[in-house]
Amino acid sequence: MSALTPAVAAFLDAQRLGVLATVSEQGRPRQSVVYFAREGDRILITTEAGRWKARDAERTGWASLCVRGDEPPYPSATLAGPAGVQRADIALATARIAQKVMGLDEPPEPQTDAALAEAGRVILAIDIERVGPVSYIGT
Amino acid sequence: MSALTPAVAAFLDAQRLGVLATVSEQGRPRQSVVYFAREGDRILITTEAGRWKARDAERTGWASLCVRGDEPPYPSATLAGPAGVQRADIALATARIAQKVMGLDEPPEPQTDAALAEAGRVILAIDIERVGPVSYIGT
Repeated sequence: MSALTPAVAAFLDAQRLGVLATVSEQGRPRQSVVYFAREGDRILITTEAGRWKARDAERTGWASLCVRGDEPPYPSATLAGPAGVQRADIALATARIAQKVMGLDEPPEPQTDAALAEAGRVILAIDIERVGPVSYIGT
Repeated sequence: MSALTPAVAAFLDAQRLGVLATVSEQGRPRQSVVYFAREGDRILITTEAGRWKARDAERTGWASLCVRGDEPPYPSATLAGPAGVQRADIALATARIAQKVMGLDEPPEPQTDAALAEAGRVILAIDIERVGPVSYIGT
């Protein structure tokens, strides 16, 4: 069974930006604004292998994403779960995020995995295990 | 010297919502959407003593807040620093946050500290020590 209700899934699909949180080596929260896409019960974020968000996710195996709408009453949902970094076979996922960032009806032509590897791109994926707090989103 | 540039300070004062991140007892990030006010180099958030955000801040002594604007290009700033919970003398700070939530020119009539204590209200305060990432905010 999905961890997401249809309403939360639809909300996530309508939003492009979220705040990613990971935990640093010092045990402190680290946050940054990211574009994301949802694929079933997974959140996909494109980043570079050397960024702290990727390193934290690999080291700790966990990440959180908080997403809110831009207009009152500011609906929001926070998701968390096991997280990790994918280096191979990321062309389609990267194109899916690019589609969402650019607001296209279809994903753009995917780059090759080789080109993405050359550029140091990786996918940070979160398997949604915990959902909440959720505010101002119907059921 | 302030940790904030005038541009980041002005950005924060123009926003009402942020995403708070703390670290749980399990060492995992916990996030939630909060209203906040700035007082110099401090971020003030009103919450209840029993909430995890207050307990995490007290236990770990650290918190992070990520704030973004609601319109493209979505300016944002992430702030972090030593954090804790104040239980006494919180009437003025609580009124300052209420002013910002309600968009008033002046703070509303403060509740008494006794009434706030009765309701279990506390102030979660972050002393801004680290600023960044900052995106789409001038200097």
